[in-house]
Amino acid sequence: MAEKKQLRIGMVGYKFMGRAHSHAYRDAAFYFDPQVEPVLQAICGRNEEKVKEAAEKFGWNSYETDWRELIKRDDIDLIDIVTPNNNHAEIAIAAAEAGKHVFCEKPLALTLEQSQRMLEAVEKNKVLHMINHNYRFAPAIQFAKKLIEDGRLGKIYHIRATYLQDWIMDPQFPLVWRLNKDVSGSGSHGDLAAHSIDLARFLVGEFKEVTGILETFIKQRPLVEDSDGLSGTASSDEVGDVKVDDASVFIARFTNGAIGTFEATRFAGGNRNGNRFEINGEKGSIRWDVEHMNNLEVYFHDDEPGIQGFRTITCTEEIHPYAGAYWPAGHIIGYEHTFINLVMELLNGIEQGYSPSPNFYDGVKNQAVLEAVEQSSQTKQWVDISDVIQNLEPVTKK
Amino acid sequence: MAEKKQLRIGMVGYKFMGRAHSHAYRDAAFYFDPQVEPVLQAICGRNEEKVKEAAEKFGWNSYETDWRELIKRDDIDLIDIVTPNNNHAEIAIAAAEAGKHVFCEKPLALTLEQSQRMLEAVEKNKVLHMINHNYRFAPAIQFAKKLIEDGRLGKIYHIRATYLQDWIMDPQFPLVWRLNKDVSGSGSHGDLAAHSIDLARFLVGEFKEVTGILETFIKQRPLVEDSDGLSGTASSDEVGDVKVDDASVFIARFTNGAIGTFEATRFAGGNRNGNRFEINGEKGSIRWDVEHMNNLEVYFHDDEPGIQGFRTITCTEEIHPYAGAYWPAGHIIGYEHTFINLVMELLNGIEQGYSPSPNFYDGVKNQAVLEAVEQSSQTKQWVDISDVIQNLEPVTKK
Amino acid sequence: MAEKKQLRIGMVGYKFMGRAHSHAYRDAAFYFDPQVEPVLQAICGRNEEKVKEAAEKFGWNSYETDWRELIKRDDIDLIDIVTPNNNHAEIAIAAAEAGKHVFCEKPLALTLEQSQRMLEAVEKNKVLHMINHNYRFAPAIQFAKKLIEDGRLGKIYHIRATYLQDWIMDPQFPLVWRLNKDVSGSGSHGDLAAHSIDLARFLVGEFKEVTGILETFIKQRPLVEDSDGLSGTASSDEVGDVKVDDASVFIARFTNGAIGTFEATRFAGGNRNGNRFEINGEKGSIRWDVEHMNNLEVYFHDDEPGIQGFRTITCTEEIHPYAGAYWPAGHIIGYEHTFINLVMELLNGIEQGYSPSPNFYDGVKNQAVLEAVEQSSQTKQWVDISDVIQNLEPVTKK
Amino acid sequence: MAEKKQLRIGMVGYKFMGRAHSHAYRDAAFYFDPQVEPVLQAICGRNEEKVKEAAEKFGWNSYETDWRELIKRDDIDLIDIVTPNNNHAEIAIAAAEAGKHVFCEKPLALTLEQSQRMLEAVEKNKVLHMINHNYRFAPAIQFAKKLIEDGRLGKIYHIRATYLQDWIMDPQFPLVWRLNKDVSGSGSHGDLAAHSIDLARFLVGEFKEVTGILETFIKQRPLVEDSDGLSGTASSDEVGDVKVDDASVFIARFTNGAIGTFEATRFAGGNRNGNRFEINGEKGSIRWDVEHMNNLEVYFHDDEPGIQGFRTITCTEEIHPYAGAYWPAGHIIGYEHTFINLVMELLNGIEQGYSPSPNFYDGVKNQAVLEAVEQSSQTKQWVDISDVIQNLEPVTKK
Repeated sequence: MAEKKQLRIGMVGYKFMGRAHSHAYRDAAFYFDPQVEPVLQAICGRNEEKVKEAAEKFGWNSYETDWRELIKRDDIDLIDIVTPNNNHAEIAIAAAEAGKHVFCEKPLALTLEQSQRMLEAVEKNKVLHMINHNYRFAPAIQFAKKLIEDGRLGKIYHIRATYLQDWIMDPQFPLVWRLNKDVSGSGSHGDLAAHSIDLARFLVGEFKEVTGILETFIKQRPLVEDSDGLSGTASSDEVGDVKVDDASVFIARFTNGAIGTFEATRFAGGNRNGNRFEINGEKGSIRWDVEHMNNLEVYFHDDEPGIQGFRTITCTEEIHPYAGAYWPAGHIIGYEHTFINLVMELLNGIEQGYSPSPNFYDGVKNQAVLEAVEQSSQTKQWVDISDVIQNLEPVTKK
Repeated sequence: MAEKKQLRIGMVGYKFMGRAHSHAYRDAAFYFDPQVEPVLQAICGRNEEKVKEAAEKFGWNSYETDWRELIKRDDIDLIDIVTPNNNHAEIAIAAAEAGKHVFCEKPLALTLEQSQRMLEAVEKNKVLHMINHNYRFAPAIQFAKKLIEDGRLGKIYHIRATYLQDWIMDPQFPLVWRLNKDVSGSGSHGDLAAHSIDLARFLVGEFKEVTGILETFIKQRPLVEDSDGLSGTASSDEVGDVKVDDASVFIARFTNGAIGTFEATRFAGGNRNGNRFEINGEKGSIRWDVEHMNNLEVYFHDDEPGIQGFRTITCTEEIHPYAGAYWPAGHIIGYEHTFINLVMELLNGIEQGYSPSPNFYDGVKNQAVLEAVEQSSQTKQWVDISDVIQNLEPVTKK
Repeated sequence: MAEKKQLRIGMVGYKFMGRAHSHAYRDAAFYFDPQVEPVLQAICGRNEEKVKEAAEKFGWNSYETDWRELIKRDDIDLIDIVTPNNNHAEIAIAAAEAGKHVFCEKPLALTLEQSQRMLEAVEKNKVLHMINHNYRFAPAIQFAKKLIEDGRLGKIYHIRATYLQDWIMDPQFPLVWRLNKDVSGSGSHGDLAAHSIDLARFLVGEFKEVTGILETFIKQRPLVEDSDGLSGTASSDEVGDVKVDDASVFIARFTNGAIGTFEATRFAGGNRNGNRFEINGEKGSIRWDVEHMNNLEVYFHDDEPGIQGFRTITCTEEIHPYAGAYWPAGHIIGYEHTFINLVMELLNGIEQGYSPSPNFYDGVKNQAVLEAVEQSSQTKQWVDISDVIQNLEPVTKK
Repeated sequence: MAEKKQLRIGMVGYKFMGRAHSHAYRDAAFYFDPQVEPVLQAICGRNEEKVKEAAEKFGWNSYETDWRELIKRDDIDLIDIVTPNNNHAEIAIAAAEAGKHVFCEKPLALTLEQSQRMLEAVEKNKVLHMINHNYRFAPAIQFAKKLIEDGRLGKIYHIRATYLQDWIMDPQFPLVWRLNKDVSGSGSHGDLAAHSIDLARFLVGEFKEVTGILETFIKQRPLVEDSDGLSGTASSDEVGDVKVDDASVFIARFTNGAIGTFEATRFAGGNRNGNRFEINGEKGSIRWDVEHMNNLEVYFHDDEPGIQGFRTITCTEEIHPYAGAYWPAGHIIGYEHTFINLVMELLNGIEQGYSPSPNFYDGVKNQAVLEAVEQSSQTKQWVDISDVIQNLEPVTKK
């Protein structure tokens, strides 16, 4: 076997997303035939004991405790940023300036302005870049994209998207970093709505204007000393103010005339991970739910009268994007496979020299929608996306 | 058997809703034991041939061709208005002035102002009144109400309600009366969103403020000569402007702090009658879908860990409201039974001398929300319900 | 309107099925245009007080307390038998000999031999006859029949049918007549499996041979003094032996080569009325569940690759059998509508002079399968249907 | 980190199951903390080019082309057999005699007799052994087991299990090895029903007696030169007889009084991988479907009246077996994770010196049920399991 080109990765962070990314790098060549081989070169975290443990557990060749040192290393081609949101910009810009490709978790940054500086940095330094909107890479979503591009739904009229969770409903759940505005920037908005916005941009088109609400139901929570963002134990009797949103609700108009409703919340009991949407077009409709992510429900308005109805398609057949790489039809894949599929796009981009979609351009556009909703929530006005961001050129495959 | 008190009904209109109401009057005493006997005294319509045929078909004792004559009759106790929306106000007010009780289809009127005059008329003339929001009377909805009143969901955080249909997606579908603004007042908004608003008011509480969009996707349609509102044949090559909305989308805040998203549309392919909602409270959640109207999905956040999940309850047991009157558990009822149950409430109100819920007060409050959304759609501002209607006293059972 | 021919009905029995039949007679002409008008002439029961009450409640013109008197009446054209199973044969045969048409509840009789005598009686006396397998008349089932007849499923390979209930799981539930072998003949077998057998005969074809089990899980139950068959209160501390089956499970081969699995039970917790089946053919499959009886799930094996999947069809459109008579698409009907649709077939048969399907021939064929399974359960052998019944000519529309 | 004990694996075969096993060995220590480290020491296959390629792709340290050579190697602790079924016995027995632990694909052998010799060999040679019934290791199944062991369902009355596929419905689909009786032993019976039998033994108990049918719908198929068992291209115009079953249908009684119905088929259009069951007990019921394998539906008969219904539990929470090792609640896992979980049991058994369940004892018991059904299909009699196998001692954890 001829030697393949390698992509030597340096990853900053090692918790939930660090684990998901590590696994995807390990599995990409098991299921697919990437022309570039991902190498788990170095993992980085401030706590040496923990990062060392993560390196062994996840299979990284080495570790660092200072991301600036990581970026300096000659044996790193790409920096993968899986830190809390407040560190994305600084690391990404430094990595770009050091000539490293950058793969960054979503949301791209705390603010639109930060994200724009990140995009400028990667483009100016001519490094490749990608953002992790992994749900695009569910086979059902890629197949939905194909149906839409083939005109099977016709002109789109509606999207209604929800991302419903319930993990912080208990008022005694502590103020973990994902609820700390300084660290996370926002609550359900940047964490959950950002995914729905990305799916809408991918499948429907660009947002034109929005109006919405960010709401915090529980105003104070116990402080927490250490947490991984998803859980934690209250450190004392002290409480702190919750400055991020518990829920984000907004309406949108798209540039192509479609109308969207969006709702992200962490207060929808019984919905552990309700990332769902329905899209209606003049010729058909689709529905998706990440908790049944292998399925796509499809309706065609020109089906024979009498036998019109949503079909439940299990997107696990060879004909469905990525699915042929896994198991026989009906043998489902899960959450982590969206990362493996995404990594394949990353490797293809690296091989061929382009920034795969979704990249920092998409991150900025996503952030613009997030910011427009935030503005709207404050001003109680509709906010035009073109008033928060202008004249941005897509970064697309040449 | 002792003679029961009678309620002699005069109904104006005889199409879709006329049929549903007639059937409900016929069936009420079959399934239940009303203390007042409904009598199908007279049905009224302008086309003598057709109204005569309807009278025979539906079992009415007599017919009229002029509703003013109907109202004059001594042998009529209650006027039931199932005409197109533009006639509701005039008939209802005249009926009230003639001392007749009034049962009116929804939406109550074309405008909030009309609906307020209707409420004034019935209250001033001390006649009883009701509006037909039939979905309240599905056993699953009544059971949901009970769960909420019993505190089983706790404080409500969210409602997301949709009413999705697809019957006018074809651009060649003609301009039937339900698409004619002069006759119907609005499109999906008053026809469909009105139902969701009623369910939200019933289960969540009063609306505080709204912002939203009314949208017309197909701007012109073939003219039609005669239609029953739901179907029709184009009369010629002529087209007319569609002045009603094809879709209505809005966000709401409730006075109790809950947040709602609402979407009504006739352009959601594959959704024949998608009247659905989910409500999330601090202790639990419920879901409902009229196409599976016997089911209520219920989640309790304090269920034992490990076995928390939405339960699918088939509300067909004796313990479920109204359900004991029908068939054994698991033997489902359908659309028309919501009308039968509602008629029972009407008959109880008549017997005991109060205006049952929902009555014209609810119709006015509903219309206020509809109107606020319409204003918002034009001004692109949030509209406070208290700015469109003030100081309205509920009409409740004494 | 010209005078229509009348069908003057005399019904024996007035409980669960009496109610369902009465309602269907009342509603047939409301929804459809039968050429024969059903007249609720007389209802019959031994308890005068109760039968009188039923007559008033259900709208019967008169009542009798002795079915022999009912049969003697000149003003009765058809005898409808909704008594417990042990009375079917005697009444039906007497009615036929008196020249009355006969409509009988299922199962036709306690034994195959009884049912054969019933068929002989109606045929010999040239009266028309029908048996109440109401589920055939759900629009979704009739539509399934059409798809199969049109060859849309191709050759049938499989049917798997269940009828799962749970109403007698409590060991303290008393020995109501449906659990009394002398009255009911069998338990879940004749009550529930009989329905699945009928659907299989209707949709798949004739049974060739069977092997199976009848099982009684709870061997003794409290005695009950009076009951309507579905509920009752224990009359004392006394218990009696349960001689009917709690569950019936069997495998079948059909004459056309299809294979079937059947399971009826009253011990399947959480299944209030789980009458369900799936049929697989060489070109497609269908699924149905009576608790969502408006839906038919359909799969076509020659659908375009990639978009193959079960479609959920809501059989409420004009194109679906009977559905056009009710409400707009997506507005569901329920259990009682299967009776209304069946009554239309009965009225059509009366008008045109043929015994509609399913008639006593079907009742006998059904009973033969029931009896073959009973034999098999005792002998632990496969039983060929042709060994329990031979050379029976179908009674079909001429 | 202290050096862990290693388990050096030699795997025979490299296709569908070889891939699934390889992946599980690679991932076990990523997600869990096994005290024994699995080492992918050598992979074996007759075609050198292909096995070399598989070794590189899957990450094996070396390869062999003769399984006898593999067994001779000193650096191998366990032989993993993923070959077609006809080779299981010879390899397993030789491996045991060489002192290697054995992990074998299901069904254990072509015949009960073979499987018994395999069990004798592993026990006599005191090597550890396991069989790959992976579905036991879905978190939902393990959680179901816990509920049953905790008495939450009470005495079990019913299991109805299906394993429905549709991949060979096309009569032109060729005679791949899975359809070749000499190689596979049976068709859907050993491939699919074996899984249902294992789940039933795991959750319900031991089989007492069975009666059933094995059926071949398509009697001849095109010959194929080379195939991986799941697909292939016809090699010529020649056809061969299909000697394996297309469908397997049987009824069972369990020693604890429960009754089961089982159906496995490859002719159920639209069912890509319909491994499903429902179990009913005196206190509750459960349902599972591998295509939604993260979900368990649970019904408790003693839930509060009015709110009784099946709960849909997404078994992805820390409280659910194995689930805590993966992703946050609601982030689903897939088919391959059942293998990872199973490998953890294998590693635990190796560490602690016992043969984990399911082991060859379970393989033999499973084979006994398969054989009993085959006998029954030929003799058309019920077959008592004790007549095909006697006095077998379980191999359980000491």
